[in-house]
Amino acid sequence: MSHEPVDPVALTAALVRCASVTPEEGGALQLLEQMLTDAGFTCTRVDRNGTPNLFARWGAKGHARSFGFNGHTDVVPVGDAAAWTVDPFGAEIRDGMLWGRGATDMKSGVAAFAAAAVDFVRDTPPDGAIILAITGDEEGPARDGTVALLDWMAAEGEAMSACLVGEPTCPEDLGDMMKIGRRGSISGFFTATGVQGHVAYPHRARNPAHAMVSLLHRLTAAPLDEGTDHFDPSTLQVTTIDIGNPATNVVPASCQAVMNVRFNDLHSGASLTAWMETAAAEIAADTGVEIAVETRLSGEAFLTPPGALSDLVAGAVRAVTGRAPVLSTSGGTSDARFVKDHCPVVEFGLVGKSMHQVDERVPVDQIPALKSVYARILKDYFS
Amino acid sequence: MSHEPVDPVALTAALVRCASVTPEEGGALQLLEQMLTDAGFTCTRVDRNGTPNLFARWGAKGHARSFGFNGHTDVVPVGDAAAWTVDPFGAEIRDGMLWGRGATDMKSGVAAFAAAAVDFVRDTPPDGAIILAITGDEEGPARDGTVALLDWMAAEGEAMSACLVGEPTCPEDLGDMMKIGRRGSISGFFTATGVQGHVAYPHRARNPAHAMVSLLHRLTAAPLDEGTDHFDPSTLQVTTIDIGNPATNVVPASCQAVMNVRFNDLHSGASLTAWMETAAAEIAADTGVEIAVETRLSGEAFLTPPGALSDLVAGAVRAVTGRAPVLSTSGGTSDARFVKDHCPVVEFGLVGKSMHQVDERVPVDQIPALKSVYARILKDYFS
Repeated sequence: MSHEPVDPVALTAALVRCASVTPEEGGALQLLEQMLTDAGFTCTRVDRNGTPNLFARWGAKGHARSFGFNGHTDVVPVGDAAAWTVDPFGAEIRDGMLWGRGATDMKSGVAAFAAAAVDFVRDTPPDGAIILAITGDEEGPARDGTVALLDWMAAEGEAMSACLVGEPTCPEDLGDMMKIGRRGSISGFFTATGVQGHVAYPHRARNPAHAMVSLLHRLTAAPLDEGTDHFDPSTLQVTTIDIGNPATNVVPASCQAVMNVRFNDLHSGASLTAWMETAAAEIAADTGVEIAVETRLSGEAFLTPPGALSDLVAGAVRAVTGRAPVLSTSGGTSDARFVKDHCPVVEFGLVGKSMHQVDERVPVDQIPALKSVYARILKDYFS
Repeated sequence: MSHEPVDPVALTAALVRCASVTPEEGGALQLLEQMLTDAGFTCTRVDRNGTPNLFARWGAKGHARSFGFNGHTDVVPVGDAAAWTVDPFGAEIRDGMLWGRGATDMKSGVAAFAAAAVDFVRDTPPDGAIILAITGDEEGPARDGTVALLDWMAAEGEAMSACLVGEPTCPEDLGDMMKIGRRGSISGFFTATGVQGHVAYPHRARNPAHAMVSLLHRLTAAPLDEGTDHFDPSTLQVTTIDIGNPATNVVPASCQAVMNVRFNDLHSGASLTAWMETAAAEIAADTGVEIAVETRLSGEAFLTPPGALSDLVAGAVRAVTGRAPVLSTSGGTSDARFVKDHCPVVEFGLVGKSMHQVDERVPVDQIPALKSVYARILKDYFS
């Protein structure tokens, strides 16, 4: 039996027309579930706390060769709707581009891997399994998205032996970069509490602004590191400092500040928390100002060391695009930070230039090219 | 003809009962004007832009020996009225204290010098003049208070050959301190403008928080000086730093900060402005963050060098209280900063402990003692 191949551009357009702004399902997962079920996948909605998620498997549960794709159908809000050239959910094709919210991040990626998977199992059914773990909350709090899928899979004995996350990864041209890990991310929240007073009598006060300036200066004075084999240098950014004292003759009582660290494999959430706490304690001892520190870890740094999986993906990228992708760990966080606890994971997807922006759009011809890369990955993985 | 001496406690109580919260006149200047007119003073209301002021002179205009008193009848707001033990405008006498807003700052001082002056000109009319320059706005913006009186006096050919400001000056006991100058005060307002961006890509952003931390650290790192013969070390206090960025993944676009410097005679408004501007320019050059600096000078540092006037006042204090007052330049600003451009000026008054606080009050027996000091000053000045 022969089938028409799935058109990934039409599928992307159909997904863009689903207004799946986090946490709305918007019909996107339903559409995929129908298509995958028709193609012989076993589909399960793994919703948790109102967050919609879709698990789909073709082939035997628990097969030792189970290749997984991970992605999301939710999108960030439209923003200033009046600033858009097109209907953000119209999926209009104009000037060689497919326009709409989610066009790059990442309905085209989901469409490309779903299309590649469906064609592959129909045309050359492999000795193994293909798993699609698709969430409706990657852009939101991400507490009940890919994490819920992975929790459910573990409980059900479902497992991937390798996983590709289809997020946009290429800075300029399709094929120029893939991700083999991600930096970690941690935020530090500081509250300095001193003693209020009159600026003319500072010996009777303890200025928390001065303590905070000393602390932030100490934490920002030197680079955290020079980078490692596979990671850029860690970076630290102070995101806010707030006192809100309107009186120029009053020493304020308290001062708050927040910083965020994107860190490589020289650090961990625990090591950075200890570093912040130690600095705060030293400044507090020097100044007599109390400094409370809280940290919130978004994800640890992780690396899938260059090897079989990255060779497989890089080879497929090179074969289709002619480009040898840089193996990078740059950028923000992605759901790969959850997957890495379960199996080797890498990321490859489109050029991400207009993601989260007004007039988000993708060159139409990148979508079938991306499908070809994913198809090549499946072919090589199961050969 | 013999008179009963003016009771300075009753006069203080009468003034406290006038609710003269800046800029309200509250009947306080009217009361003084009536009493001084009855005693032979020439009184003129020198109101400007709605701010009430009273000029009173006994004796010949332009006399070479014209001793001046300066003070204010306005008071700061009551604050939390429910927290007061007494009616803030009741002038109740309880436990040896006269209670009420303005009891120390500085209706008792005004009452004491007005009472001393009236008794003096009645009992021993001097060869000279006594001037009382009393404003209704020392606690507010002070633009149309003592400044307006001095402007008017200069225009009218009225002049003081020496002046005593009756503000509270004593830290613990009546007589322990007088002021022969004041530190200057200047505020610096900084606005750092960088380039907003995502914390994961700090190379595409320019963080104004980091530039501000560097600037404030530089400006606060070392003491401004070690003090001078008659001045304490200058002090610098950061009063606020504000960004207001709620997003932990966003490098903010701008950051504002304010600092206030209380400075001695090693500095001037101009020298400190240049110092702040130079530091800001250097940090801006280092970071690529624009930093705008504005300064607002409340008053230059000034000194009436120890000499005839301070000897006169210190001698009177010692004679009445048995204490040799420290000649200080500490504390906040006062209207002496305006008077010093016209004639030698020193300050002596009560213990200022409860000024501006809830349950402001003064030991009743300090008021006649202060009147006695002022009377002795007049006696010695004109002898």
